[in-house]
Formats: sequence, structure tokens, C-alpha cells
Amino acid sequence: MNTAATIAAAIRTGRTTATATAEAALADIAARNAATNAFTAVTAARARAEAAAVDAAIAEGRDPGPLAGVPYAVKNLFDLAGLTTLAGAKIERDRPPAAQDAFLVRQFQAAGGVCLGALNMDEYAYGFTTENAHFGDCRNPHDLARVAGGSSGGSAAAVAAGLVPLTLGSDTNGSIRVPASLCGIFGLKPTYGRLSRRGSYPFVASLDHLGPFARDVGDLALAYDVLQGRDPADPAQQDRPVEPVSARLGAGIEGLRIAVADDHFARNGHAEAFEAVAVLARALGATRRVTIPQAALGRAAAFLITMSEGANLHLADLRERAADFDPGTRDRFLAGALLPAAWLVQAQRVREAYRAAVMAVFQQVDVVLAPATPFVAPPIGQAMTEIDGQILPIRPNLGVYTQPISCIGLPVLAVPLADPGAAGAPQGMPIGVQLIAAPWREDVLFRVAAALERAGIAAAPAPPA
Amino acid sequence: MNTAATIAAAIRTGRTTATATAEAALADIAARNAATNAFTAVTAARARAEAAAVDAAIAEGRDPGPLAGVPYAVKNLFDLAGLTTLAGAKIERDRPPAAQDAFLVRQFQAAGGVCLGALNMDEYAYGFTTENAHFGDCRNPHDLARVAGGSSGGSAAAVAAGLVPLTLGSDTNGSIRVPASLCGIFGLKPTYGRLSRRGSYPFVASLDHLGPFARDVGDLALAYDVLQGRDPADPAQQDRPVEPVSARLGAGIEGLRIAVADDHFARNGHAEAFEAVAVLARALGATRRVTIPQAALGRAAAFLITMSEGANLHLADLRERAADFDPGTRDRFLAGALLPAAWLVQAQRVREAYRAAVMAVFQQVDVVLAPATPFVAPPIGQAMTEIDGQILPIRPNLGVYTQPISCIGLPVLAVPLADPGAAGAPQGMPIGVQLIAAPWREDVLFRVAAALERAGIAAAPAPPA
Repeated sequence: MNTAATIAAAIRTGRTTATATAEAALADIAARNAATNAFTAVTAARARAEAAAVDAAIAEGRDPGPLAGVPYAVKNLFDLAGLTTLAGAKIERDRPPAAQDAFLVRQFQAAGGVCLGALNMDEYAYGFTTENAHFGDCRNPHDLARVAGGSSGGSAAAVAAGLVPLTLGSDTNGSIRVPASLCGIFGLKPTYGRLSRRGSYPFVASLDHLGPFARDVGDLALAYDVLQGRDPADPAQQDRPVEPVSARLGAGIEGLRIAVADDHFARNGHAEAFEAVAVLARALGATRRVTIPQAALGRAAAFLITMSEGANLHLADLRERAADFDPGTRDRFLAGALLPAAWLVQAQRVREAYRAAVMAVFQQVDVVLAPATPFVAPPIGQAMTEIDGQILPIRPNLGVYTQPISCIGLPVLAVPLADPGAAGAPQGMPIGVQLIAAPWREDVLFRVAAALERAGIAAAPAPPA
Repeated sequence: MNTAATIAAAIRTGRTTATATAEAALADIAARNAATNAFTAVTAARARAEAAAVDAAIAEGRDPGPLAGVPYAVKNLFDLAGLTTLAGAKIERDRPPAAQDAFLVRQFQAAGGVCLGALNMDEYAYGFTTENAHFGDCRNPHDLARVAGGSSGGSAAAVAAGLVPLTLGSDTNGSIRVPASLCGIFGLKPTYGRLSRRGSYPFVASLDHLGPFARDVGDLALAYDVLQGRDPADPAQQDRPVEPVSARLGAGIEGLRIAVADDHFARNGHAEAFEAVAVLARALGATRRVTIPQAALGRAAAFLITMSEGANLHLADLRERAADFDPGTRDRFLAGALLPAAWLVQAQRVREAYRAAVMAVFQQVDVVLAPATPFVAPPIGQAMTEIDGQILPIRPNLGVYTQPISCIGLPVLAVPLADPGAAGAPQGMPIGVQLIAAPWREDVLFRVAAALERAGIAAAPAPPA
């Protein structure tokens, strides 16, 4: 499949139509979705209506917007008018359909995007593998026996498989960056408070972020520029100006202070994770090391806050219909419901102290490189792996490098290695790296990612046909 | 004792000296403190040094500041350099002395104030009666067999007894307003985030406020004007300009929309509480009623947040030396330590929804009148009383009207009835009323309080000699 930018250009210049593009994408999904199980719902009627509207606009000489006719899909925790928002949960099937689209879906629609459906995820976004007991496992396009990552697994798999050029996901502790890394695509977790979360199913209010996936930096920038916009309905969204990045992708990295995270981020993973960072660092000429202080403590705080807030949200269902939860999700929610409040208060204290300590790091550097995941995608069903000589559970450890970053709201762009083999990634599987900046500095992340892409270092590897 | 304004004027114009004033106050405290047990420490050497500095400044023609030579004292949770900050707790006796003064103490000192000592309180500020197992009960100057209120009981009793014209206290759920009402003096709980809390012993970070007590509105305004000032060391303090009120006390109440709180604030107390509000309302020509929605729910949220955050702060001591706590405080902390985190999350959610609902009220009115306490000061040691036909515990119910206001940070000025008998207050005991405004609108509270004072309605009744 072409990039979003190419598709929009072709449609706007009349080389094809939005309708033809949508029909082709729908046919492709019908033929190929079963392989990955990325889509949980296909919104064919909606896609046809939206495509027709774009074609009509063009016929009438109106500008359909920068995403003119671009097919996209969203994690099934985004409200799509007329569809029940599942959030990966059987329990939610009983709820009424959404009355209107999520704010970010409306942003895409207003820009000419064509929504093709909803995507698989871990139940209530509480997981890193999208092994979903109700809707089935989401499989990695690079190896269908392996996980796609999670919780936005369907969002990453759909893009990596070429079913759509753009998707939306959510990231509470790593749920955009983990599947982006495991599926070998680009993913953006913007600064906490940047994008409106109205009309998305919440998980942990103080940690939830929404963001886009794409197969190149240009498309990711295009999506991010369209998604920005003030929405007072999300009390966490900050009143920031729209700060578009697309026009600045060629700015280069001259003057940027780029460093590699050591300590926590140089342990707790397999060799390919660290080698992936080294490949990027060499390409960027980044020799500096930097310590993100107390990352393990910050991660522990994020765990406790996630458990407590997550459990609170589902307390009534946990009491009344615990058997209807995905077993893995339920048991963690139940544990969260039993945590003492004094621990949560302590976690909140630790998080604030950690935030202050990390902010000081960004007085010294502009961009920090860190692994996105500790290893490539593990086989579906595998529970444990060896890390630093210990046999540890895979699922929580997939977030070992993402969780300490998102709990203080820093923007992160996950970039895939064009040649994961160069980092020693096993079995030809992809792997990604986190580019991390100070709050509100998505702009520098896009400059670095674009430079890496131009140098041939960062790119989405093609999955096997 | 004279007012702070009168004392400062006499010292600045040479009619007396700061040293003579300090010596007289020290002698008075030595003679009379035993009656109320308001002071837990007298800082005579410090007072003499500060007074000498003021006198020296005057002798050299320098301006010693608006509190020139004014004696004051602080709740024993404010740091005073060289003194161990007790926070009413035996446990704290083991800790080293404070290295420097609290921020607000420095503000008073810079304005020429002379610090006479530290004042009794409930252990760790967790109470409304100042019945302290370690330092003894604080007694009400109006009837030594009755409580002074709490937790800033010593701060209120010292002012009501005329030992000092100004004191500082703290208010988490009502700890300034309750003792102000029971002792018949003025007390200000400013907007959350207005005054720096640096160097004060914390209780509940998201609820703690500091503020002054005085016997007239002019002194309260004088203190408040001096206390304001930016301090980045308190992360909760908002970056607001200093907004002095002293010069505006004569502005009158023309144009102010004043209403009486009904519902929760018209129940849960004895007749004198409601009659006190009625006396003020009549004097102000306020006939309007207003409902503060879901006040009981907001109060419940404040209870849970207080228990959880308070317990967290003392967890190590609760585990290791529970017997060293005041029994009443300890048992509530232990209960707080066992609360489930999901309840705390829910309390935080409720608090935010309640905050939003109450803010809408202030679109309609500028000042709300509500009782400060549900009854006059109860006898020391009395645990239960009848409220609305039920026998209920006194201590938590002393905060029934203050707690729903402070948990959303609204500024409140507690004004005493000049003639509590006119409200049917029993046994000649004083009682106060809360004047409540929107955040950052302390100015309108002072205008209303000053108007009530000019009309002879609000004043600190003289305690029996």
C-alpha cells in the first residue's frame, strides 16, 4: 500500500478517487485481515460514505483536506458513531453504540480521512501483547506465530501489514511504542495533554495518551498535524497552540544535543535492544550518555497508579461479573482493587519527585535515545523469558523502557530500524528505538526521525509477502 | 491587649518601644498562659532580639515594616529556626531543630513582627478540638471547661485571650475556621495555593492551607497583606500577584451578590449556628438562598483523601512506634492506612466533579454565608452530642460545614458574632460564620467582613476577665 501522502496526492489530483481507494482497501482487508486479526470491525458503509463525500468535494472544486481519501482505522477504544466502543472487552458488547465520533476521529474526518474500522487490543488496554481472550490474538505481520505487541496491537499490525497507511492507538504505559517496535513501524506518543482524549475509553486518566502509527515519518507528521486542536472537553488537555511539524522535517539535527540513556535503559533487555540504540546513535554521531535518574522507581510508581486507577474504573464489574473479564486482565484489576491507598499516595509522591529529577536532564540534552522494547516480538503464548540471567515474565517486561517515560508525560517517537539484522535482531524480526524529548518538544523528535529516515537507518521493514 | 495596627503605630511613632511591648507580652504569657495552655513554647530570647532589631531600626530612621514590634505566635507546625517543629506530636520531639524559619514566619519577621512562641494543636493537625494527649488540652478563654477548637486551637485561644494580637494556623479541613468560631475571633483560610507552605509540617498536601487569626478585620487584612509573596519552593503555590486588601476595607458591599447556603448548611447543626448566619444575612440585606451541590459527597471525599494521605505520611512511625501517637489520631491513621486505593481514586474523582459543580455557583453569587461550626464550643472530654435527632460524635462533626469548602480550595473568612446571644448561642459562648468566595476573591470577603464590623455585627467578644 502507498503512503497516506501519496494516496491523498493521487486523489486530490484526480489520478484516482477516494471511492476506488476505499474499495481496494476494503477488499484487501477482507482478503488479508484473517492473517493478523488486526480488525475487530470493518466500517464499510461509513468508509464508502466518507469516500463519496471526498470525491464530491473534489468534483465541486472544494479542498477535501490533507488526508483526502486516506484510509485509516482506530483502536477499538475510540468512539465511532453507531458502533459500540469495545475497548477489547466482552463486557462492553452490552453497552449502547457511541452517539458520536471521538475528537481525534473527527479531526481525521475533517481532514478528508476515510475510516475503515476498529482494531484489536488488549482488554481495557491493560497489556502489551494483544492476546485477547474474547476477540482472539492479534498476530505480527512479520511472523504470524508472534505477538504484535499491545495494547494497540491491531493498530500496529494493520499498518505493518499494509492494510491501512494510518491508525490511531493509545499509550498508557507503552501501548503505542511497544507494538510499533515489535511490528517495525513508526509510532508517536505525544506529550501528555497534547491531544484530546474525548470519546476514547479511559484506562488511567493521569497516564492515558492517544497517538498515531504510520510507515514513514512524513505520514506520522501529517497525522500528528491533523490531530492537534484545542478541546476543552478533555480536562487534561493543555491549551497549547497547534504546532505543526510536517513543514520542518528537513530541518536537520544541527545543534541538537542527543544522548543515549544508560543505567536502567542499558540493562533489563536482550542484546538487540541495546544494539538497535547503538545503530541509531552511530548514525546521529551521538556519543554522549545520560542517566534518567530513578527510572525503576518511576516505573514502580506507574505500576501502582495504573493498578489503582484501573481497578477503580471497573470496580462495579469486578464485583458483579468478574467471570466476563479476560482472565489476565481481571486478576491484575483485582489485585489493584486491594492495594492500600497509602501505597497509591506514595506512588503519586514518587512520580512527582521522579518527574522533577528527569526534567533536570533536559537542561543538558534535547533528545534521549532508549530501547523501545527489551527484545523482538515473542511467540504468542510464551509467558517467560530470560533477562539478565533471570527468568522473568514477558508481558510486564515488554514495557520496561516505555513505562518510566510515559508516566511523566514526555513525548516519544518510536522509530523502527530499517535493517533490524544490523542490530542482531533474531529471526528477521523488527525492533524499534525510542526518541524522547522534553514536554512539548515533539518538533525535535520529528527532526531526528526524519534525519534517520533520510540516512536510510529508520524505516518500516517490509513483512514477508 | 491592643490591636496589631495600634501597637505598630505606637512603636513607629515612638510612644512605646518594641522591647517594652515584647516584655509586657512575655510577662502576660507567663502569668496567664496556664489558663488556656495555648503556648507550648515561648521564644523569649528570639522575641527580645527581634524587638531590639525593630527598636534599632527606628532609632536609625529605617522603616521596620507594617508589623513593627507586633507580637505574634505560630501553631507549633511552623518551623522556627532552632526549635524542633512538634506538630503536636511526641514523636517529633526526637527530631532535630528547624534550620530556618517557615516562609510565612519570615514574611512576618521582614515586616517587623516579633515572634513570641509556638502554639498548641491537635497531633499532626488531625482533629477539631486540641485535646492533645502529649501537650495537654487547649482551653477556651470564654470558658476554660470547654475546648478551643482545633486543630489550630492554641492559635485561636492565644488571640481570643489577648496574649498576642496575631497568630498563624493551618487549615486542612477547617482547622482555622473551627477554632476561630469557637473562640470568637476572625480567621482567614485563603485560596488553596495562595500562601507558601514552605517550612510547615504537612498533613494532606492537596488540602493544606495556612492563614492568620486576629481580633479585628484590620489586623487580619494587615497580616494577610504581609503573608502574600511568591515562593517557588511550595509547588502548590500559584504564581499570583500580591493582592493587598487593607486599603480596600472601606469599599462597602454595593453590588456584591450575597446568598445564604441552604441544604447541607441548613441542617446538621444546632439552632445557634443557623441563627448566627441569619443575623449576618439580615445585616447584609441578603435574602437569596443558594445550594452548594453535593456538599456531603464532597465532604466524604475529603475524609478519604485526608485519611489516605495522612496515613501515608506517617506509615513508618505507625508500623514502628504506634504507641507513641495520640490514641485518637493513631486509630484514624491506622484506618486510613488500610483504605483500598480504589476508594481514594474514587474520592479524587468525586472531588473534581464536586469542584466543577460548585464553581458554577459562583457564576450566580459573589459571597456565600454558611455556619462555621454546628454549635458553640463543647465541654472538654465530651464525645457525643445530639444533631438533628441523632446522637453523633462531636469531633468529626465540628468540621461538617468547613470540610466541604476547603477540599475545593475556596477562600473563607470566619467572622465572629459581636453578640452571640442574639443568635441564641448558649452559655454566652461565641460563634462564627463562614464568608465564602470564588478562588482568589479574598478581596470581597474582606469587604463584607469590614462592613459587618462597621455595622457592629461582627467583632471578637471579650472573654470573661
